[in-house]
Formats: sequence, structure tokens, C-alpha cells
Amino acid sequence: MNAPSHNFTPVLPETLRNFIQAAFVSQGFPQADALTIASLMAEADLQGSDGHGVIRLPMYMKRIRAGGINKHPDIKVVRERAGMAVLDGDNGMGHLVMSRAVDLAIEKARTCGVAWVSARHSNHAGPASLYARKPLQHDMLGLYFAVGNANHLPPWGGTDMLLSTNPIAAGIPAGAEPPVVLDMATTVAAYGKVKAKAKRGEMMPEGWMIDRQGKPLTDPNRASEGFLLPIGDYKGYGLALVVGLLAGTLGGAAMGKDVVDFNADHVSVTNTGQAILVIDLSAFGDVAVFKGAVDTLVRDIRNSERLPGVERIWLPGEQSHERRQSYQAGIPIANTLVQELAVLAKDLGIAPLVQGSAAR
Amino acid sequence: MNAPSHNFTPVLPETLRNFIQAAFVSQGFPQADALTIASLMAEADLQGSDGHGVIRLPMYMKRIRAGGINKHPDIKVVRERAGMAVLDGDNGMGHLVMSRAVDLAIEKARTCGVAWVSARHSNHAGPASLYARKPLQHDMLGLYFAVGNANHLPPWGGTDMLLSTNPIAAGIPAGAEPPVVLDMATTVAAYGKVKAKAKRGEMMPEGWMIDRQGKPLTDPNRASEGFLLPIGDYKGYGLALVVGLLAGTLGGAAMGKDVVDFNADHVSVTNTGQAILVIDLSAFGDVAVFKGAVDTLVRDIRNSERLPGVERIWLPGEQSHERRQSYQAGIPIANTLVQELAVLAKDLGIAPLVQGSAAR
Repeated sequence: MNAPSHNFTPVLPETLRNFIQAAFVSQGFPQADALTIASLMAEADLQGSDGHGVIRLPMYMKRIRAGGINKHPDIKVVRERAGMAVLDGDNGMGHLVMSRAVDLAIEKARTCGVAWVSARHSNHAGPASLYARKPLQHDMLGLYFAVGNANHLPPWGGTDMLLSTNPIAAGIPAGAEPPVVLDMATTVAAYGKVKAKAKRGEMMPEGWMIDRQGKPLTDPNRASEGFLLPIGDYKGYGLALVVGLLAGTLGGAAMGKDVVDFNADHVSVTNTGQAILVIDLSAFGDVAVFKGAVDTLVRDIRNSERLPGVERIWLPGEQSHERRQSYQAGIPIANTLVQELAVLAKDLGIAPLVQGSAAR
Repeated sequence: MNAPSHNFTPVLPETLRNFIQAAFVSQGFPQADALTIASLMAEADLQGSDGHGVIRLPMYMKRIRAGGINKHPDIKVVRERAGMAVLDGDNGMGHLVMSRAVDLAIEKARTCGVAWVSARHSNHAGPASLYARKPLQHDMLGLYFAVGNANHLPPWGGTDMLLSTNPIAAGIPAGAEPPVVLDMATTVAAYGKVKAKAKRGEMMPEGWMIDRQGKPLTDPNRASEGFLLPIGDYKGYGLALVVGLLAGTLGGAAMGKDVVDFNADHVSVTNTGQAILVIDLSAFGDVAVFKGAVDTLVRDIRNSERLPGVERIWLPGEQSHERRQSYQAGIPIANTLVQELAVLAKDLGIAPLVQGSAAR
């Protein structure tokens, strides 16, 4: 966990949310939509998913100003049955599209027991866990699949980058314990981690990337000369492919060579695909019994005997749960990012995130 | 791929199926149930899943004779909504329980678009891919989750074996191309592969297992002193946990320390949990368009430029697809297994699988 230090400025969650909202409003987004997006982006930083929070704001603004995002999307259901729907996001911000998708899946799961909603013509929506977690408050379980917004993964044995880091996320309710929340890329490292290594001037460990000769690539500044490696070798390749078929192809969204690299191209419609499966626990049995069983399992795992040198065993989602509580008093935002956002704020004609940061 | 050699005897699929059926009938199973089980077990061998086919027959028979399996189970729906059901397998053979579960999910998906069926009080059901593939013939997509039948995986950093190799399988229809069929354990190696190494007197590569000090364990004869490693380190641990919660806990089946090691204990009710999600493609759009998109993706992947030394890029399920065709003329059964089955046949009072093998 990153603790606040002299390289970071603590920012209150509502301050961060208000700043992000103002940025979207400055570009002509409706207040309510700007608030939805800003709440989710601030929630990403609050849980420590700092690669998917306000750090993305400059790039989002670049795309919006280039006309690559529809500010007034007509998000609508284009296919529907009792337990499923396909939502067309009309090239709106992914946060708006996926919020609607999850709400719809929750509603449908209430009657059917389970429901699947696919989104097409969506866009980058932030960390996968935000959407997998949303059903938790309804005593429902969420499974989320997404096509990543740039291809950095070739098929196993190949060099054509036809796949992305296609993430899977799951949110599973517990009782007294924090929920089990998994959010993982199907590659050993997400591409954001490579970029972060480059920014910090650090080398990557072997196993993250290989070059076109199949040799380990450890210099993050040479990342464009190589590819990410999937988890479990051919297994992660298969998993990335299946997740992409479920999140992209099934709903009529981009997959394979149709995926637009949204870091390089700010104008083309990405046709991003995401999908959410919601399962209503009460359909399967007594919700309290389920939660009790999860609590027991969580405790058995936490109290497991440990390998030499291991101080603590973590459950998936436990670290972000702790951050979500401790960061209420202030989310540590890197000072370099504070400065970058000050330049952006000036450019957008809004107040800076941190008072005085604009003057520096 | 294992090609037939002097160490193997080719056996026709129907010969294998008839032999397995006779074995179950000899123990008092109804003919129809014995045929269902035998067909699925022979199908496992036919597609090359030889760790889950007839090789399991001696152990199944041991459990059945010890009273650990219900020969006349009352498999029934105990919870139901339009898009889901919980099936109680009444401790019947897993093949029977999961066949019913998939059929029910297909039926429900026809109206709801998607359907989830959880099985409790089931048993080992053979390779995951059998059930994920079953919806394909209905132009539906299958996702299968199972709790493995013995815990060989501790939480990341721990040494208490609370998790199994909990597999995920997916069956996704294509058009002219073979379907994409993924079937993977969430560990680097399935435990069956460790046992196979021991049988062949080979060492395991580093990365399959570690010992209680966290050091690589490469001698398969020392497997009981260590643990399997999850794919992608903590990611595979998270995935195994989530798969177990979905396949086990959700449906009221065993998970964590309640999992019975069915290799060591032939009597206790395993309460094995499995779950199937079926998605009806026609609910999402034109089935031909979906299949065409999968074909294109499959071809783009197959035709990708390759790393030095790589002869061919495989799609998940492509190798088993080729085996399913070539093995129609004869499934290669290891001669050691043929002998073992001859001893079993004599014991059961049925004809041997291979004529003359009993005499040796």
C-alpha cells in the first residue's frame, strides 16, 4: 500500500469528485452524468486503483475535445430477454454505460435469479472491480468481463498483438468480513504497471514482457518492442481470448484486430465491449447462510499457516477495502499528478484540485 | 499429442463405451444411467482428456463398492427461478448430475437468454470441457466452474491446503472453424499431471510445485510434501477461490476445509459442487454474424506471425478437436491401463476391454 508521503498530497474524496465533475461539466456534459463519472473515478482512487482514477482525466479530456466521445449519448437496450440485454452505449463514457448495464442486470436478476448485460459502443470505464462490486449492496454477486482498450498480448507463440489484458472481476458478498473482490488482468502485469515502472525509472522483473525474439524484456522504455506475457502461459492466453469473446464479440463490440488503441488514437469510435453477470443470492438459498460460509472460508484462509517470511495472508479485495476506509481522510495523489491536473484545470477554465498548485 | 505406439492399444470408441457401461451395470446401475456415464467417460478419452476418462474407472468402482456413491439417486431441483436452478445430485455420479444440470440450463436459456444451474451433492464428473461443450450443438455458449475433488492449493503465502485446482471451462461456437473450447485448472499443473510424471519416472519442471519452505519441488514422488502453484501467483489463487465460491458455496456444496479428498476417502459423501452458465447466442443477435466473427478471430490468431522456433499457433480446443476426429479409428489406451482394466473386469465379472488382455 502506498502511504501518504512528501511525494503525495492528501485530497478528500469529495474534493476529488467535485474537481472531476467540474472538468466534465466544463466540456458540456450534463451535471448528472458528470457526477456519475466523477463519483466512479474518485471511487477508483479511494480504493487505491490509482491507475484507473483521476490519472486518466487528462487522456479522457483529450479524447472528448478531439470529438472521440459522445457527450450526450442515447444509451439504449437493443436486444432483450428476461435474463439478458444488450445495451448500446452510443459511444458515451464507459462509466455511464456500465452503470446503466449493472443497474439493469440487478433489476433482471431480481426476477430471473441471474442476468447478463452486454455493452457495445462503450468506452474505458475504469477499474473492473467498481462494476463487479455494485451488486453487493443488493446481496447479489457480480462477475465482470471487459475487452481492454489496447492490444498488448499476442496469442501464445505468436507476435501479432491481437489480444488485450482483458480483465475479469468478481464481487462476492460476505457477512462480517469484507466482500471477496477479485480484479485481475489476464496478463502477468497490466500495461499501466509497465508505464508506471518507466515513469519511476525502474526495471521490470523477468516474466512481465518478452521481445520479438521471445527473450525477457525488462526495460520498460523498450516496452513498444515487446509484448505482455499471459498468466500461466497458454492458459492466460486462452483466458484472455474467452474473456474477449464474452465481453466483446458476444455483444457486438470490438475484439481482436478491431480493437482501437485509445492511447494512440483519440478520435475513432472504440466500440469497447464489457459485460456483467449478476447473481441474486436469495434465489439460491438463505443469504445469511451463504454469507456465513464465506466468512468461515475467509477466516480459514486468513488464519492459514504461512510460508517462511510471509507476514500476512490477504484475501482478494482486502487491501482495497482497507484503503477505502483509511483514504476517507485523504486520498494520496502524487504531486506530479497534482501539477499535471493544475495545468489541465487552467486549460479547462476550472479551479485546480489543490489550492495553490496552479501557481507553481 | 500422443500418437498410438507399441505402448498403446487402439480401442474403438464404442468398444470403450460398452466396456465402461458393462462395468457400471455390473454394480447395479440402471442401463440408461450406465450408458450416460460411459458415453461421457469414453468421450473424455476420445478428445484426449485421458486423465479423466477410463483411467478413473478403477477408482470409481472402488468408491461405488465402498458405498460412497448412490446408484439410484433422486436428482432433483431444490431451488428454481426462470433463469436458474439448484440441482441436488443425491450423491449420484457427477456425470449424471451435470448432464441433467446442463440440459436444464439449455432449456432455461431458451427463454431467458442466459441460465445458471448449480449442482450440489454431485461427484467427480470428468473433464470440465464435456459440459462447457454441450450447449454448442444448440448454438449456445457454455461456461463451467467446478470445485476440484482434493485440496492441493494453499492460499497465496500460506501452507494450509484450503483450495483445489478448481477448473474453468468455456465452449464457444464458431462457424467453419472448430469451436473455441478452453478447459483449464487454475493451478500451473493439474494434480493428475504430477501423478503422471511420477508414473513415468520423470522430474517436474520448476514452477509446478513448492515445498513447505517455499522452495521449488521437482520430484513428483515427494508431491505429498508440497503444494501446487497457482497460475499468475496471487491471481490464480484469487481465481481458484472465486471459482470455488461460484461452483461450491453458491449452490450449497463443499468448499475450503469441507472438501473431501476422494483419492484417500472412498466412503464420505463428497458434496461436490459444479455450476454451468449457458448463454443463448440468438438472444444477443444474429448467430451467423457471431460465428463469422469467431471464425475471423480464430484465423487471425492462427495466422499470426510467430516467435522463433514456434511451428504452429493453437487455439484452445483445437488439439482435442483433431484428436476427436483421428481417435474415431481407435483411441490409444496405454497397455499398462489395459492390463489394469483386465484385472478390474475379471473382478467385476465382465468381459475385458481388449480380448486376450485378461490372460496375460
